[in-house]
Amino acid sequence: MIKRILIVGTGLLGASTGLSLRAHGFAGEVIGWDRNAAALETAMRMGALTSVARDPLSEAKEADLILLAGPVLAIVDWMCRLSEVLSPHQLMTDVGSTKQQITEAAVQHYNRSGRAAFLPGHPMAGKELSGAEHAESGLFRGAVWLFTPPATFMPEPMAAAVATEFRALVEGFGCRTLEMDARRHDELLAWVSHLPQFLSTALSALLEDEFGGDPELRAIGGRALREMTRLGSSPYSMWRDVALSNTEHVERALHALELRLAHVRENLRTPGLRQEFERANLFRAAAPP
Amino acid sequence: MIKRILIVGTGLLGASTGLSLRAHGFAGEVIGWDRNAAALETAMRMGALTSVARDPLSEAKEADLILLAGPVLAIVDWMCRLSEVLSPHQLMTDVGSTKQQITEAAVQHYNRSGRAAFLPGHPMAGKELSGAEHAESGLFRGAVWLFTPPATFMPEPMAAAVATEFRALVEGFGCRTLEMDARRHDELLAWVSHLPQFLSTALSALLEDEFGGDPELRAIGGRALREMTRLGSSPYSMWRDVALSNTEHVERALHALELRLAHVRENLRTPGLRQEFERANLFRAAAPP
Repeated sequence: MIKRILIVGTGLLGASTGLSLRAHGFAGEVIGWDRNAAALETAMRMGALTSVARDPLSEAKEADLILLAGPVLAIVDWMCRLSEVLSPHQLMTDVGSTKQQITEAAVQHYNRSGRAAFLPGHPMAGKELSGAEHAESGLFRGAVWLFTPPATFMPEPMAAAVATEFRALVEGFGCRTLEMDARRHDELLAWVSHLPQFLSTALSALLEDEFGGDPELRAIGGRALREMTRLGSSPYSMWRDVALSNTEHVERALHALELRLAHVRENLRTPGLRQEFERANLFRAAAPP
Repeated sequence: MIKRILIVGTGLLGASTGLSLRAHGFAGEVIGWDRNAAALETAMRMGALTSVARDPLSEAKEADLILLAGPVLAIVDWMCRLSEVLSPHQLMTDVGSTKQQITEAAVQHYNRSGRAAFLPGHPMAGKELSGAEHAESGLFRGAVWLFTPPATFMPEPMAAAVATEFRALVEGFGCRTLEMDARRHDELLAWVSHLPQFLSTALSALLEDEFGGDPELRAIGGRALREMTRLGSSPYSMWRDVALSNTEHVERALHALELRLAHVRENLRTPGLRQEFERANLFRAAAPP
């Protein structure tokens, strides 16, 4: 059914999707476009694409499936730009980190009479290093690929068939697919993804200010320090849009953690510390292996 | 030179030291004692020990080297109990997580006329899971084994030779040895080890209170969540003594992180967020691979 896929944005996730499609038996065309010519060339050289789009708007018209990959606000921009040139038999999806704003744009510009279908998506996979050069065909193995279809997502038969086939492709990558309400997605993600990111950034920035290049700190820091600061390498360009599109949920999670750290600090010498360790042990005991 | 080593406390680090000694060619006796009979039996069964001490005090008198392994305050207790039964040709060392209190006890009870020598030590290795059953002969490979000898550490020739041989053994485990002032040790460790621990405990406890057993949270949480909460499994029994023996440094580090998180939270929509990512990127760019 799907013969032509256009990937708009061939960075880490876009190029990894291309590599995964090609590694897992998708025999059709995978056409790529990126405003960064070098990223596009890298994705092509790595085998993530079968060809490069010269004009993304005219290529979009010919594709069965259009995948938008990049920072959230760039995805919303592309949704607006492409909404009027596409047809109801076409399906658009994305891999954006937050889903409420994108799902609202999907209601506004897609999923209604005369318009293409839009199925918001989010693979729970990534890296602290961005760019096509870090793409991998195995990036999505074992991950959950979330979808947050709005109530208005009622695709025409051809677009519905494309959606079914795309889910099957994604499952072929080794993903489990899961549907979720967009608002619930953004709330949960604020805790499991955005809070860890902003926390790791804050901790890394703090250590930079306190110790700079101190070689002793580096010499004695072990696995704990490496793990807790790994996401400190993540690029602002990607996370700016998460901060802008999920501000309230992230504010609440950060504030709750600030209060919790203060509680631990005030109880270093009291039995309150034991309770914190017991709560933490409980959380971890129920965690997946 | 070293023929008999007594390990007091055969939990994770004590048993791992025994396993490492035996795996890396130490041919002498490795005698163990633990107040927990099951831990002692596990260490013996795993091959960490050549025999089990019935009476640690009389065994201590016969050992060339006594290694104290356990929570910091338990180590300080043993230092007091054993100080009067040992002789100047004997060397005692430890693997305690904080070093100022232990090094002060070493000045008070050891390293002076008629007393045994005490060389405070700390291998920068560990796990979130405690107990002999998690011990490994490879636990120390690639780690730094710190020593914080006080100015009064001037061992008699035999004890000095034992110290030299023990360092060589530790280097044989694949460790790099490094000397450091005890106060500086506790200050640095507050940032690279204790802050990550209390942070991970606070985050795990917070997630437990916010989400309990929510299966969706578990389903979508990826590597970031796993890494940031891994140390949430750590036992209170071990960290209580760190909190008690390094309170001021840990308070300062926690408080600095609280302020930094508030700064990030207040700048989610401003260019201040870019600066935080840039500082964090800088810290990580200089980190060892």
